[in-house]
Amino acid sequence: MIPKFKIGLCQMEVVDSKQENISKALKMIESAASNGAELVILPEMFNCPYDNTKFLEYAESVDDSVTLYSLSEIASKLNINLIAGSIPEKTEQGIYNTSFVFNPNGEIIGFHRKMHLFDIEVPGQIFFKESDTLESGDIITVIETGLCKIGLGICYDMRFPELSRLMALQGAELLVFPGAFNMTTGPAHWETLIRCRSLDNQVYVAAASPARNIDASYVSYGHSMVCDPWGSILKQAKFEETIIYAEIDLNRERNVREELPLLKNRRKDIYQLKNLK
Amino acid sequence: MIPKFKIGLCQMEVVDSKQENISKALKMIESAASNGAELVILPEMFNCPYDNTKFLEYAESVDDSVTLYSLSEIASKLNINLIAGSIPEKTEQGIYNTSFVFNPNGEIIGFHRKMHLFDIEVPGQIFFKESDTLESGDIITVIETGLCKIGLGICYDMRFPELSRLMALQGAELLVFPGAFNMTTGPAHWETLIRCRSLDNQVYVAAASPARNIDASYVSYGHSMVCDPWGSILKQAKFEETIIYAEIDLNRERNVREELPLLKNRRKDIYQLKNLK
Repeated sequence: MIPKFKIGLCQMEVVDSKQENISKALKMIESAASNGAELVILPEMFNCPYDNTKFLEYAESVDDSVTLYSLSEIASKLNINLIAGSIPEKTEQGIYNTSFVFNPNGEIIGFHRKMHLFDIEVPGQIFFKESDTLESGDIITVIETGLCKIGLGICYDMRFPELSRLMALQGAELLVFPGAFNMTTGPAHWETLIRCRSLDNQVYVAAASPARNIDASYVSYGHSMVCDPWGSILKQAKFEETIIYAEIDLNRERNVREELPLLKNRRKDIYQLKNLK
Repeated sequence: MIPKFKIGLCQMEVVDSKQENISKALKMIESAASNGAELVILPEMFNCPYDNTKFLEYAESVDDSVTLYSLSEIASKLNINLIAGSIPEKTEQGIYNTSFVFNPNGEIIGFHRKMHLFDIEVPGQIFFKESDTLESGDIITVIETGLCKIGLGICYDMRFPELSRLMALQGAELLVFPGAFNMTTGPAHWETLIRCRSLDNQVYVAAASPARNIDASYVSYGHSMVCDPWGSILKQAKFEETIIYAEIDLNRERNVREELPLLKNRRKDIYQLKNLK
């Protein structure tokens, strides 16, 4: 049987308290699971304000993480798959922006470290340099879960078509991007990027953002959304804290790929896209 | 001085008469030039109905082409750059869907042969197999014009992010796509694709479609449009025959690339996109 399952994206408001953020995440995960979501997705930096001055303070190492411990517990209690948005991960090399993936036994079955760091300067509008504080990952992440193969990127990673394409070519059927675009780049690019990654690669794409918190130093755009493999928006949030749901139907994905065989029609004799690692 | 110039896209209605199509094209080119366009762009298959049964009948070889002769004359008369949408080009290998580019002396300075052929089957909605009749080109086309470097693709070529990316990496500052999406793929994908190619590659993108002709066997979506390097729509037509104009400002392009350095931030240590030819 070709898999079909419900996913839930928790567009939670992130505040300047790790404990409050964890409690909120657990509550929203419970709610999503009780509504039938078999895969629950949290936003980028769900346990920490998206602020260079906070990453170090909030960072946890994978072996000693109250955040990951809580999420492992709830994933196994609720028997769900969980993509834990991202957290600042403390390592010997420095801090990464890392997304951990749990199976329904509460085990970590994979993780992605954000590989493109977001350094932006639009005069008079926004200045943000992530690479001042964070290390960048260098592994393309496609994870076999019990539901389907998931390609995982974080926020700015979404902007690089090479990455989404490589994840699709490596068999990803659903791309997941925890992401926090802002009030400049969000309205300009968020929806177009997510729709285009899905229609170019004929995959489902789910992007989970924090809710808008106007008291934060970095104000997220919200608008968590899910697109189908035809590039249609299945569900999109607005600014407020909410959970959105969508059905992932891999039979639909196969049909789209048969009817418009984009991946087959690539001119591999003319161009070649390679994963070097 | 950094170039800034006006382009005009002729969204012409194509009918089943080569002579009428050429006359219409010449009239619209005159009009665009008289409104200050220094580069004029025609749509895909502007001299021929977009129909497999017509390509052979309408095809011309480059050495004996009434269509290209007329366009060369008008480009030099009006002192403009001209991208002649596309025509069915007759060669010893077969027929190509080819776009010719003229400089203000009326000389052909480059051409692109559509390299991805459009074979689609959406049951009950649309069936079209271009590869039954046409050969596919195999060269990526970036042309140095007197205005800027132009990357040239045709219609379905637009769907493959590798091609646009390679053209941008080869220095294209403006991507031009003569294209004829239909009433299924147009509303679903046309705008998203054009916006995303521009914002991913931080280039201007101009896409010229035939006007909608509901008497044709293949009904074009129209909606010719121009996007800026931030992915914003500068101008978009509706269904009817019309000329749209936009300003290409390469200074704007430089600014966008400085403020959000996407092309620099690519992880060339992790993935590599190569032009094999």
